[in-house]
Amino acid sequence: MRITKRTNIAFLILMYCAIHHDRLVTKSEIAARCNTSESHLAQVINHLAQFGYLRTQRGRAGGLTLARPMADIGVGEVFRRFEAPGAIVECLGDIDKSCPLVAACRLRHALADAAEAFHAHLDRLTLADLVCGNPALVDIIAPQACVGKA
Amino acid sequence: MRITKRTNIAFLILMYCAIHHDRLVTKSEIAARCNTSESHLAQVINHLAQFGYLRTQRGRAGGLTLARPMADIGVGEVFRRFEAPGAIVECLGDIDKSCPLVAACRLRHALADAAEAFHAHLDRLTLADLVCGNPALVDIIAPQACVGKA
Repeated sequence: MRITKRTNIAFLILMYCAIHHDRLVTKSEIAARCNTSESHLAQVINHLAQFGYLRTQRGRAGGLTLARPMADIGVGEVFRRFEAPGAIVECLGDIDKSCPLVAACRLRHALADAAEAFHAHLDRLTLADLVCGNPALVDIIAPQACVGKA
Repeated sequence: MRITKRTNIAFLILMYCAIHHDRLVTKSEIAARCNTSESHLAQVINHLAQFGYLRTQRGRAGGLTLARPMADIGVGEVFRRFEAPGAIVECLGDIDKSCPLVAACRLRHALADAAEAFHAHLDRLTLADLVCGNPALVDIIAPQACVGKA
């Protein structure tokens, strides 16, 4: 099982904006620094703005910035918004009801409970936990920046 | 994220064999009852036998049976064997190192820890927990059978 590229890019954008929390950043600089296409970024930025994680400012001096303090952006919450709705781990019964056992299968419930345990772990973390005191990340994204507690 | 069809079929075969634990079952009856192709079943049966979950007997009177008591077949263990090796939830950094943050990204570790929580939940269950005292499942798979504790 893999997280989608969309989810991956969403976290990448949020981490980038968190490290540069003192200024507006541009889509093109994230694309250049993070090895991602601008078209991929554009879609995800729209969603991040709709969900209230980013504030975007149009125009020549425009750009992106976090819409909330990084400590208020939950990793589990972002993860759930970007991954497919419903169960994190779907079986054939969840997908298309093609499994004949669907009405009685305890595996489905076991997977749903295990997915809850997965989410509960991510729910303990915020964007600040991913970024703050992580000099190696800062070195990659912004060698000159210095990120303290947000 | 979805479990693979292979994993789904593996559990379906194990549950079928568990309900019919008092006799050999055939590939064709599982295919007919469980809405699955025989070719799909054949591959998964081979793996289940290699992993020591099934015993197969060739010949006209041959068939499949569980190689261990159902209470000794761990759900988490089967799940791990059939899903891709490594992290249950892979990010781009895990897959092809295309993410530039890979060396410093705490999201990878958070996902790995969350996956551990996921597995820990499944590790508490055995095949017996999926099958025993589940009359609705028995009704679907084998209306005449009666499954008690194995």
